Amino acid sequence: MPKPDIPRKTVYRLSIYQRCLQQLKQNLTETVSSEALAKAAGVKPSQLRKDLTHFGNFGTRGLGYNVEGLSAQLTEVLGTARLQPVILVGVGNLGSALLRYGGFNKEGFEITAAFDQEGTPRPNSPTPILPMEEMPRIISEHGVKMAIIAVPAIAAQGVVNELVTHGIQAILNFAPTLISVPDGVWVNNVDLAVELENLSYFIR
Amino acid sequence: MPKPDIPRKTVYRLSIYQRCLQQLKQNLTETVSSEALAKAAGVKPSQLRKDLTHFGNFGTRGLGYNVEGLSAQLTEVLGTARLQPVILVGVGNLGSALLRYGGFNKEGFEITAAFDQEGTPRPNSPTPILPMEEMPRIISEHGVKMAIIAVPAIAAQGVVNELVTHGIQAILNFAPTLISVPDGVWVNNVDLAVELENLSYFIR
Repeated sequence: MPKPDIPRKTVYRLSIYQRCLQQLKQNLTETVSSEALAKAAGVKPSQLRKDLTHFGNFGTRGLGYNVEGLSAQLTEVLGTARLQPVILVGVGNLGSALLRYGGFNKEGFEITAAFDQEGTPRPNSPTPILPMEEMPRIISEHGVKMAIIAVPAIAAQGVVNELVTHGIQAILNFAPTLISVPDGVWVNNVDLAVELENLSYFIR
Repeated sequence: MPKPDIPRKTVYRLSIYQRCLQQLKQNLTETVSSEALAKAAGVKPSQLRKDLTHFGNFGTRGLGYNVEGLSAQLTEVLGTARLQPVILVGVGNLGSALLRYGGFNKEGFEITAAFDQEGTPRPNSPTPILPMEEMPRIISEHGVKMAIIAVPAIAAQGVVNELVTHGIQAILNFAPTLISVPDGVWVNNVDLAVELENLSYFIR
């Protein structure tokens, strides 16, 4: 199935709807109205209905959405139906923390391997931590398309260039710097300090 | 100085400019043109100039910005001139990882204490990990206004209500759920699974 051309913000909202549906499933709820689902997700019902029509789901008027069915459809659209292999580059403080986190698996992502410069202390980790030279082999053997980078700011662009050369198409960037990628490669930035600074501005 | 009423997205960009200025300082650069600073930050020069006028900085035509001076001004505006106390609620996998991360201090934030339910295994941590009952006392004694929450989704809203009751004004939410807060309280959400899912959609 070719992917519909959905704006990035819509895809974020699909993830939020999926979270809400998972909670409903846990509560053994079988159907949900668009009003109730929209309220749980913090959007207007018209926004929810519009977002779902992007992939052809129009619901059933008067009956609401089947929770199980809509959730399965979102899993398919979001590409998390199968465990998606991801590599991690940079096993310093934050990288080690992410390796130990262990919460990615249940969301459909598996850290296949982590990479760091030789000589870096290795945390106890069930994920293999390999020298950078092994990266191309692992990417190719496991068909990896996604990477998380948690290297120092100064090293980030070099690492990104190498990842892109070897076929990585999507990068979750924890390095506190802006990186450039060619068209067709996607980057999301998570900068914890920027998030805190942003909040810090607004407190009295 | 009363704070100018700056949109949240502008404050995010101020943080990005600050990152760029810090890199310039490390490179011992003394002045930077608005064109060069805008390029490093990934925005248009007109955007940069507009953002800086929010707090009265108009630069000096032809001379560019003084790196040290502009950075000091941003530190003041962003409220990171003094170490800002922050509490962490939830010391599970992700919370422990954040405690061990240790990268907040150099960005102007100090985790004063962490809180979790009694009976939770305690990671080795220089930060005290206290039972929830101690939270009001710590908030009041240390004048804490910011909190990071990393509790399970189902517990998040209850924790948030308690934080708000005791005077917390800004929350960085790692719990994979949406939370409601009264006016005057700010929330930023960091959902690692949502970020990965978002990227996952776009890869081929």
